[in-house]
Amino acid sequence: MQATRTPDPARRNPDSTKAILEAALALARDEGWSKVSIEGIAARAGVGKRTIYRWWPSKGAVVLDAYVSRLQEAPYMSPEAAATDDLRADLVRVLNDTWNMVSDSLPLLAALIGEAQHDPDLAARLWERLIAPSSEPVQARIRLAQDRGEIAPDADPFRAAELIYGQIYLRLLVTPKALDEGFLEDCVDLSLRGLRVRP
Amino acid sequence: MQATRTPDPARRNPDSTKAILEAALALARDEGWSKVSIEGIAARAGVGKRTIYRWWPSKGAVVLDAYVSRLQEAPYMSPEAAATDDLRADLVRVLNDTWNMVSDSLPLLAALIGEAQHDPDLAARLWERLIAPSSEPVQARIRLAQDRGEIAPDADPFRAAELIYGQIYLRLLVTPKALDEGFLEDCVDLSLRGLRVRP
Repeated sequence: MQATRTPDPARRNPDSTKAILEAALALARDEGWSKVSIEGIAARAGVGKRTIYRWWPSKGAVVLDAYVSRLQEAPYMSPEAAATDDLRADLVRVLNDTWNMVSDSLPLLAALIGEAQHDPDLAARLWERLIAPSSEPVQARIRLAQDRGEIAPDADPFRAAELIYGQIYLRLLVTPKALDEGFLEDCVDLSLRGLRVRP
Repeated sequence: MQATRTPDPARRNPDSTKAILEAALALARDEGWSKVSIEGIAARAGVGKRTIYRWWPSKGAVVLDAYVSRLQEAPYMSPEAAATDDLRADLVRVLNDTWNMVSDSLPLLAALIGEAQHDPDLAARLWERLIAPSSEPVQARIRLAQDRGEIAPDADPFRAAELIYGQIYLRLLVTPKALDEGFLEDCVDLSLRGLRVRP
C-alpha cells in the first residue's frame, strides 16, 4: 500500500502546483466534495488536465495534498525546542494548532477519510502524508514526558497517540456531538489519567 | 438528522425483509460495496425494486439494516443479568461478542461509515441503529463498576466508551495496523488504566 505511483514531486512547477492545490481546496470547500473534479480543478487553476494527472492519480490525492500543504503551515511544537514544563498544556497546544488549521474544513477531512474507504491508494497517502505525521508531535511529547518520569515507562507513545486521537476521529466521523476546543482538552485529560505515573 | 423518512418497519413483510437483508449483505461481501445496487439486491432477493424503495431510501440504508440485524444476534451481556466480578473480562467479552459478528465483514463496516460522510440520512441511521446501541453494554458495565466503587465516580460512561471505541474505529478507518482480538484487549486495558479508582 505504498503511494509510489507519481514521479518525483520535486520536479513539479512550484507555481502551478500552488495554483492547483489552492484551486482544489477552494472548490472542495465552496462546492462540496461530490462536486470536485479534475476538470474543475484544472479550470480554476488555469492549467491543463494532463498537468494534474501527471502528478496526482485522483481528485482525492489532489485535495489531500492541498490539505497537507496547509497543515505544514501549522506551528507544530518541536518537543526539543518548545516543550514547556506543562505536559497537558503542550499536548493541548499541539491539538489546538492542528485544530486551527482544519476546523473550517472538517467536512472535507471527513470526506477524504470516507473516500479512502473505497480507494486503497488514497488510504495509503492519507496515512503517510497526513494522519501519521500529524500525530508525531504528540508521540514526541509523550516520549519526552517519559524521559522526565511523568509518563509511565510501559506506555507505548504510539498507542498513547491512538488513545487521544481515536476519541477525536470517532467524533469527526461517527458521533453527532460537539467537536470543539473544549472536547480536545477533555480528550487530553481523559487520556493522561491513565498514562501519568501514579504518585 | 433524524432517520424518519421510511414508513413503520413493523408493517414490512418479514419474509421479504429477511430475503432483502440477506441479499444485501451477501452482495456487499461477495462483490464489494461499489458493486451493490438496489437492482442487484432486488434480483438476488427475488423482489421488485419498488418493494425495497418503499422501505429504504438508499443501498446504504439496506446494507446498514442487514448489519444491524446480524448484530442483534450477538450475545450482548446484559449488565444486570450477566456481569461477573471481573470488569476487564466483561468489557473484553462485550467487544469480542461484537467482533465475532463483524470481523468477517470489516471492509463493509468501513464502507458504510465512508458512505455516511456524504449522506446525512445514512449518518443518522448509522449512529442511531448501529454505533450508539453497540456501545450501550460498555456504558452499562462502566456504570455498574461505578456503583461497585471500581471506576472513578467522576468518569462519564459515555466518554469512557468513546475512549475505548475511538481506538478501535481509528484502526478500522485510518491506521494500517492489526485490528484483532489482542488489540481489543489492549484497548480495554489502556482505557481502564485511567478510569479505575486508584488504590
